[in-house]
Amino acid sequence: MPSISWRARSVQASPIRKLKPLADQAKRAGKKIYHLNIGQPDIPTPKEYFDGIRQAAQGVLAYSPSQGLDEALDALAEYYQTFGIPLSRDQLIVTTGGSEAITFAMLAVTDVGDAILVPEPYYTNYNSYAQITGIQIVPIETCAEDGFRLPDRKSIESKITPKTKAILFCNPGNPTGVVYTKAELEMLAELALKYNLYLIADEVYREFTYDGAQAISVLQLQGIEDRAILVDSISKRFSACGARLGVIASKNASVMESALKFAQARLSPPTLEQYGLIYLLKSSRYQDFVRQMIAEFQQRRDVVYAELQKIPGVSCPKPNGAFYIIAKLPVEDAEHFARWLLTDFALDNETVMLAPAAEFYATPGKGRDEVRIAYVLKVDVLKRAMSILREGLHAYTQTR
Amino acid sequence: MPSISWRARSVQASPIRKLKPLADQAKRAGKKIYHLNIGQPDIPTPKEYFDGIRQAAQGVLAYSPSQGLDEALDALAEYYQTFGIPLSRDQLIVTTGGSEAITFAMLAVTDVGDAILVPEPYYTNYNSYAQITGIQIVPIETCAEDGFRLPDRKSIESKITPKTKAILFCNPGNPTGVVYTKAELEMLAELALKYNLYLIADEVYREFTYDGAQAISVLQLQGIEDRAILVDSISKRFSACGARLGVIASKNASVMESALKFAQARLSPPTLEQYGLIYLLKSSRYQDFVRQMIAEFQQRRDVVYAELQKIPGVSCPKPNGAFYIIAKLPVEDAEHFARWLLTDFALDNETVMLAPAAEFYATPGKGRDEVRIAYVLKVDVLKRAMSILREGLHAYTQTR
Repeated sequence: MPSISWRARSVQASPIRKLKPLADQAKRAGKKIYHLNIGQPDIPTPKEYFDGIRQAAQGVLAYSPSQGLDEALDALAEYYQTFGIPLSRDQLIVTTGGSEAITFAMLAVTDVGDAILVPEPYYTNYNSYAQITGIQIVPIETCAEDGFRLPDRKSIESKITPKTKAILFCNPGNPTGVVYTKAELEMLAELALKYNLYLIADEVYREFTYDGAQAISVLQLQGIEDRAILVDSISKRFSACGARLGVIASKNASVMESALKFAQARLSPPTLEQYGLIYLLKSSRYQDFVRQMIAEFQQRRDVVYAELQKIPGVSCPKPNGAFYIIAKLPVEDAEHFARWLLTDFALDNETVMLAPAAEFYATPGKGRDEVRIAYVLKVDVLKRAMSILREGLHAYTQTR
Repeated sequence: MPSISWRARSVQASPIRKLKPLADQAKRAGKKIYHLNIGQPDIPTPKEYFDGIRQAAQGVLAYSPSQGLDEALDALAEYYQTFGIPLSRDQLIVTTGGSEAITFAMLAVTDVGDAILVPEPYYTNYNSYAQITGIQIVPIETCAEDGFRLPDRKSIESKITPKTKAILFCNPGNPTGVVYTKAELEMLAELALKYNLYLIADEVYREFTYDGAQAISVLQLQGIEDRAILVDSISKRFSACGARLGVIASKNASVMESALKFAQARLSPPTLEQYGLIYLLKSSRYQDFVRQMIAEFQQRRDVVYAELQKIPGVSCPKPNGAFYIIAKLPVEDAEHFARWLLTDFALDNETVMLAPAAEFYATPGKGRDEVRIAYVLKVDVLKRAMSILREGLHAYTQTR
């Protein structure tokens, strides 16, 4: 039998989904599981999105232009304008999800063997995109104790080598919930200027900010217009994860020309989904939808954070963005605990599924006692899930 | 300004779309253009496809599993069973178009610097996937004079080196229209066994065969179950190019596990589109749809082929698959002629757009006097387009 490639052997299986077989087994045994492990929100997608699809669902389902439908580009430009970000059509490409946007950004600015810096913990799929594009991720260490703030400039500078082509960061952050301050972003911008790096910002959680925090876009930073690349997705803000629509945007024409060539290779993003997006963005309702959803997520964050504070031995910074909390648990090995919750524990035949946080760190050994909790369920359900977590932790730590 | 990657600079802009600016200019000047340059059929997508989408268009538009919805996998397994190809769920992954399926296949079986053999002329986007995955395409030369049949075994063997990991071929072929014989496929299978190579077959035109020809699937070849990889797409057979749904299938479990890890990185294929496909494949009508469409395409091929025979100096093998004809024209530089048709020629203010065939060859200088004609328009329209081509050729050759 011919062998599999080295890159196929070394690319990770999805760590977020890695406990799924245990969860499936528990479900088959009749256990109810609250999923706090995956960022799939429960909020119904806006009706207007589906209306747009219904209207377009006829005739010949043709390729769209590789860049996206003109109307989709225009509607997206208007959306970004509401954040004070002016973008022309040729500064935008509709991608097949945020995943593709990140891959295009990596392909455009790095060659095989190059490196990019990423604050850790980070979204684990970045590892897969790096593997696919043949580049190395060098972590910038941040930690729960410091609220996942960026370290000082010196310690970031010490990671930069001639191979470094970009700094990639997620703002607001998955899995940390951190929203970077203007000072932090300006420090990154200065590093980008000094060391001739691109700044690639994953802003899929743009609207998910709480307590008055505001996420500043990489495209709003002054003086780095030629090195700022935005990657985005409609998955979270319109609760449309299954749409597979994202965006890559930059004012650097060479970056956009490069991305377009990669986009042409895969022909086009899904056509009908773009009509859904156009219809939604043109409707007056989308901003209300987002506002209401964020209000709901703020409540959820409040509940999860408050409940976590009550559990002995648990600590976590209060996140003010995205919909994740990284919590330190009074256990040695959070993955073992997460498995145990699925295999050995139940409260009235119910349990919770958590994402062990070690997988979100590139530095070995970090985050071993941490889990990522996605608060993507209704407030009452979250309360119940937190009780189960509390009881589970109690039982687990008693028996050890 | 930081530089763009070498790979971004060297990846091709879509050659099929490269004359588009000239076409746009001609359209703005009021000229009507018959598009024979791109494989976007004009056949309405089956109603059942849209019905399935409409029914599913509600609630939360969630991620599907990375492998695809179970129902989609089952419906696809049934579809392949109708060709005598038994596949279990774990031998199938739903991809975001055939493009992604080819990329996953390349990633699974090659590392950066490896090579794959591909009979030329070939679908130009293979070059982009090779660029993205960092591998080299080594052409197996075929030519119009021989009806694009595969050369003898020796001349293929002479191209194989320790870097060669696979032979990729399109059957029925884009852009040649060739349908490989059993003997040709068995020769490839023997080479795969002898040199420990994968056979990757792009079978998106499976049903598009004429004059009683039948496309044999790579999965039907005996003795190479562990090295056969099928890449597929619903774009052409269900006239659903904009759906972005494809398939990678193999009986080699390591290949499928590898492909699944790459699939997990991009989360999921579009969810609603999968419901469209499920509904269509479960309906009794899809086979009638395909049958009628193929009958229509057979007529179109007949017309285009017959009309081409009447044009002085034009020659082409009679294709018996896909929906393309490669025609040799009595010109030195077919790209120049294709441009001239857009910029300098019109018959009653109408002209045709052709794809210069040189771009489909990897060997420099080959195919310079050839064009690819996609017969994706109605019979009457094709007749008109062929008259324009004849008059255009006459005028072009007179003035030179």
